[in-house]
Amino acid sequence: MKNISQPKIAAFAGGVGGARMANGLAQLLPPEQLSIIVNTGDDFEYWGLSISPDLDTVMYTLAGIANPQTGWGLLDEGHRCLENMRSLGQPGWFGLGDRDLATHLTRTQWLREGKNLTQVTRSLGEALGVNHAILPMSNDPCRTIVLTPAGEMDFQTYFVREQWQPQLTGLRWEGLSEAHITPEVRQALIAADLIFFCPSNPFVSIDPILNLSGVLDLIKAKPVVAISPIIGGKAIKGPAAKMFDELLHTEASAHSVAAYYQHRGLLKGFVIDHQDQDLESKLTTLGLDVLVTNTLLPDPITQKQVARVILDFVSHLV
Amino acid sequence: MKNISQPKIAAFAGGVGGARMANGLAQLLPPEQLSIIVNTGDDFEYWGLSISPDLDTVMYTLAGIANPQTGWGLLDEGHRCLENMRSLGQPGWFGLGDRDLATHLTRTQWLREGKNLTQVTRSLGEALGVNHAILPMSNDPCRTIVLTPAGEMDFQTYFVREQWQPQLTGLRWEGLSEAHITPEVRQALIAADLIFFCPSNPFVSIDPILNLSGVLDLIKAKPVVAISPIIGGKAIKGPAAKMFDELLHTEASAHSVAAYYQHRGLLKGFVIDHQDQDLESKLTTLGLDVLVTNTLLPDPITQKQVARVILDFVSHLV
Repeated sequence: MKNISQPKIAAFAGGVGGARMANGLAQLLPPEQLSIIVNTGDDFEYWGLSISPDLDTVMYTLAGIANPQTGWGLLDEGHRCLENMRSLGQPGWFGLGDRDLATHLTRTQWLREGKNLTQVTRSLGEALGVNHAILPMSNDPCRTIVLTPAGEMDFQTYFVREQWQPQLTGLRWEGLSEAHITPEVRQALIAADLIFFCPSNPFVSIDPILNLSGVLDLIKAKPVVAISPIIGGKAIKGPAAKMFDELLHTEASAHSVAAYYQHRGLLKGFVIDHQDQDLESKLTTLGLDVLVTNTLLPDPITQKQVARVILDFVSHLV
Repeated sequence: MKNISQPKIAAFAGGVGGARMANGLAQLLPPEQLSIIVNTGDDFEYWGLSISPDLDTVMYTLAGIANPQTGWGLLDEGHRCLENMRSLGQPGWFGLGDRDLATHLTRTQWLREGKNLTQVTRSLGEALGVNHAILPMSNDPCRTIVLTPAGEMDFQTYFVREQWQPQLTGLRWEGLSEAHITPEVRQALIAADLIFFCPSNPFVSIDPILNLSGVLDLIKAKPVVAISPIIGGKAIKGPAAKMFDELLHTEASAHSVAAYYQHRGLLKGFVIDHQDQDLESKLTTLGLDVLVTNTLLPDPITQKQVARVILDFVSHLV
């Protein structure tokens, strides 16, 4: 155990749970101690716009302007454009809000002007008053494609249009072999004293980052701590529990999350909810330091409280 | 005088006055008797979107969904996206509404997919229930550039951002020499029994159409009737009166409008408002048949009434 008074953390995140956990950490750690590395496998084109749902959810959450009910999208949002797009016969299954459109219009324009996704995300974050580095995992497209008995579909079609109801038979990433992590992600991973997996979907939020060439090498010598996105056998939100069943043919549980990461020897520590405290001894047999605490993150105050407990815990692991 | 029971009219239009006059005609004439040929010199790119202000004003007016106060933009409009664009440091001087954005997003996407502006405009019109042909003058960019003592600027910068306050020293059209009228405009002009200039700005709405190669040749053997956009020495809206002063160093009046068209020998008939009836005899010395009537077009019922009087008048000219 090194004695590091100011450990640097690289947090992997995607989706609402990841964004909320990142927001807890961001309330406690100065920008130089926290980098948030975000999944871009969900990114897609819609209405001719470049959409990065996970980046936006993290950005809006840290800016304090996310819709607290949904966890994604913006406060005080309207849908007049969406209504008219439907009247024009355009697809309406992805509910882009009027305010939210400003982000996508700006991102699309800046990307067309030749900025990369990291630069665009930094500029958007600065404009919204976000102080912490929100780093897309890659500037290259690396799209999550879900395999179903009826064929392949891109992630947002599965997740939003089909409301994650199709049975999954597998996942693949389009562009993975040509995609690179960014210099900023590389630097953050090299500088990090600890890698933290936020309570995000292991298969479609954390794995896309881990799949990128070089990431496993860069983190293999670092302590990695994950927090379970499964509480009491259920996902707070989204298809994580269903994916354990369909992809791994195993019951969804905090233990199955830990085992999924740990079969690759990734983890040093694991954080579970009080609801799952009966799993603690089983988790220690996986070689893990275990923290049992509240892991529900409904609001910024709770996010900060949970982050404080987790930072105490991980300070013994770096 | 030919005896044509169902004369075909090609109406040249641009801006709110033009759109309102076109809407009067469209309420009386079936689609096979009316083609509306619209200025695209105002078109520009904004927020990465392809904007065609005059096409949209005509389309929204004919669809019955234009904002009746402004004459442009949509009913029941919001500006949440605009607010957020400003927060992101994007320009906010062109007030795109949330509903209106759907039109621009769709146009931009369809143009990128390879449709031309005529096809895009037809599809948008069909989706909004417009039955009459709204024809962009060209599928090629032909942009109005205004010359001022401080330098050049594109039309929307002059018109909207600078609220047409800079002094004009001249006009030019970027792309004019490479731009062509569309096959649909050519066909409409060939088929027309009468050409009608709506009460639009002669310099920046009607001239861009007339400037396109072939237009003057196609209309020279046809009767042309214009309605004055200047009433009582003033423009109902916009810089037309100011332009007579700055570009022609002449007083703005219905007579100066007629003289401006007639020095090119364009007109057979001219329509003026009751307010200008003292100009009637002076106008006849220009060789014009003159109709004096109400020419204010605030609402669809009035637009239809004025159009009926004008159609009676022009039926004697074809």
